Amino acid sequence: MERLFILDTSLRDGEQVPGCQLNTVEKIQVARALESLGVDVIEAGFPVSSPTDFNSVVEISKAVTRPVVCALARGVRKDIDMAAEALRYAKNKRIHTGIGTSDYHIKYKFNSGRDEILARAVAAVKYARKYVEDVAFYCEDAGRTDNVYLARIAEAVIKAGATVVNIPDTTGYCLPWIYGEKITFLMENVPNIHKAVLSTHCHNDLGMATANTIAGIVGGARQVDVTVNGIGERAGNASLEEVVMILKCHKSIRVDTRINTKKIYPTSRLVSSLMNMPVQPNKAIVGRNAFAHSSGIHQDGILKNRESYEIMNPNDVGLDEKAILLTARSGRAALKYRLSALGIEVDNGKLDKIYADFLKMADKKKSISDDDMLLLAGMDNTTLFRTNV
Amino acid sequence: MERLFILDTSLRDGEQVPGCQLNTVEKIQVARALESLGVDVIEAGFPVSSPTDFNSVVEISKAVTRPVVCALARGVRKDIDMAAEALRYAKNKRIHTGIGTSDYHIKYKFNSGRDEILARAVAAVKYARKYVEDVAFYCEDAGRTDNVYLARIAEAVIKAGATVVNIPDTTGYCLPWIYGEKITFLMENVPNIHKAVLSTHCHNDLGMATANTIAGIVGGARQVDVTVNGIGERAGNASLEEVVMILKCHKSIRVDTRINTKKIYPTSRLVSSLMNMPVQPNKAIVGRNAFAHSSGIHQDGILKNRESYEIMNPNDVGLDEKAILLTARSGRAALKYRLSALGIEVDNGKLDKIYADFLKMADKKKSISDDDMLLLAGMDNTTLFRTNV
Repeated sequence: MERLFILDTSLRDGEQVPGCQLNTVEKIQVARALESLGVDVIEAGFPVSSPTDFNSVVEISKAVTRPVVCALARGVRKDIDMAAEALRYAKNKRIHTGIGTSDYHIKYKFNSGRDEILARAVAAVKYARKYVEDVAFYCEDAGRTDNVYLARIAEAVIKAGATVVNIPDTTGYCLPWIYGEKITFLMENVPNIHKAVLSTHCHNDLGMATANTIAGIVGGARQVDVTVNGIGERAGNASLEEVVMILKCHKSIRVDTRINTKKIYPTSRLVSSLMNMPVQPNKAIVGRNAFAHSSGIHQDGILKNRESYEIMNPNDVGLDEKAILLTARSGRAALKYRLSALGIEVDNGKLDKIYADFLKMADKKKSISDDDMLLLAGMDNTTLFRTNV
Repeated sequence: MERLFILDTSLRDGEQVPGCQLNTVEKIQVARALESLGVDVIEAGFPVSSPTDFNSVVEISKAVTRPVVCALARGVRKDIDMAAEALRYAKNKRIHTGIGTSDYHIKYKFNSGRDEILARAVAAVKYARKYVEDVAFYCEDAGRTDNVYLARIAEAVIKAGATVVNIPDTTGYCLPWIYGEKITFLMENVPNIHKAVLSTHCHNDLGMATANTIAGIVGGARQVDVTVNGIGERAGNASLEEVVMILKCHKSIRVDTRINTKKIYPTSRLVSSLMNMPVQPNKAIVGRNAFAHSSGIHQDGILKNRESYEIMNPNDVGLDEKAILLTARSGRAALKYRLSALGIEVDNGKLDKIYADFLKMADKKKSISDDDMLLLAGMDNTTLFRTNV
């Protein structure tokens, strides 16, 4: 099995969405959860965009140890300077720079030409390499960029020192076979491609982000940019949980990740709660109904043999329905353990308050579910889903 | 361009999910919205499952004119009898019967063998054909059914009179190339395939429902089973809006539907509200953020040229942000028109009540958005999304 690197951009592409902004303490909480989930790279922010973003990248760099911390920078010196400065405390650091490469971008956004853009790309990578050894280069709107030109850019930036070449389908336009062929074309036509890793970055405007990402992996990409719950600009990015579980269910793809799948569900809940971005009940893997078999036909089948209707075990994603059912007899320790499993860490003062509410609820209900727990902790989105309006 | 038939199963696969149940009046409201949206077939229910479901199929049969009304029935006489009875008022009617065809189903669910299941399939189709001319046959768990056996079943049921052969990926296991090859295999290996239409029915457990559906169309399927907002069992079905907009953005697929895309957004809102199934903000096409460009880089690009960042015009799906902004000076007629555009029909009494609330709100706010309108009409899920919990 070849290794696939997971770059999580929930804190950059996900967090830039209006209404999703986190403060630095919350970002550190998410970054630590991502480290514990096992992601390889955390894209922590876009330092030049605001002092707050800059500061968050600084603090995340201090807070995590194992993953690479990555900062976004347009292909201009000021951005790269700021990114390098924000990453100064990171144990493993990467600058992610780039420029628009489709004709839409070259002509209308930059009023420029292909050769000039290529020169700017090379200059940006060389400049970033003065600061760090690990430089990723994104070809913005690669999804609509001519493949031959894209191969020229990839070859040039790798020669300039890029360790990762990122191929974003910025507008979410591609279909799986188009995106997969693009990656295959680059693997076959960039002479120095073995000196770098190709990365996918797929948007979901047509609902294709995960499918395109998988097509990219099959084509040869060995890094994927993903987000928890598929959050991100507009219709979002490829979902970490969908990509990871597809690779788990389909061993024939023959790549492996370091993700601890049992942490998927608690991480999903944490990100949803902190960013105030609800997960719809019918969301794959992490939606409330994702593992709920409701029809009579299906229930009968399930009772006879689980495999008739299930391709994944809910336990594998940390959905531990049958574990520890809390009741009125449960103590503070059990309560704290359960909250922790849901991604919620509380101090003793908060625990006392939640415990008091818990006892009142447990008095009325036979057993307390995970949803009840989130409600008690004041972090439940899914309960809102159930309210009739 | 070849014609692609759209079967909407929001009222069957979507409605059987716990918490989504509609009363008959609401089902008729959805059925009429689907007719107006331009779907070809409405799967209206599973008559044998309950007297309520039976009655809903009867009433929907009376309520719509143009679309085929389809009723689900397992491959047993009692189910087919009930389906035929429930459809008696339909202008265009179809019975959708079938049986499990994967070894998981044949062995564990039916404790049977391939030949016996094939015989039962043929008998079910012949029996249904006594009642109606249009009979669809589903091969449950076709996604995990051996392709050679699936071809035998398809050939036999077409010979027995099936007009549609449905290939459900019941567990959501398939990847696009696996599902696409399955459809291609059937197109190439079922001698009488030209006498029937192959249909896709893809579940979203791995986030692949839409991608598999598109792969099926490319392989030769000419009917797709879809739902509004991708609702349905567990992680749901392929989204009507995603499939339709992919075909609109990618003319190279060369199939065409009769969907009036401008009704996508209001229909989405209506189904979400009535079924109490929120659409997450990052849902493709119909999510609150689907067309929201938030990052500074993107906004700048958009201002310079829309095509730099947009592959679809929001107006094409009925998202009419810049149309009629309601203010405190707007009258009852404008209010009623706007509600109607959102899929909400109100009588005069209700309109008076909403109008009074509207004037109070308009007094405080400069302009009243669609979200505000839904809130006023008591049908807003998305507002809940914005509440901090």
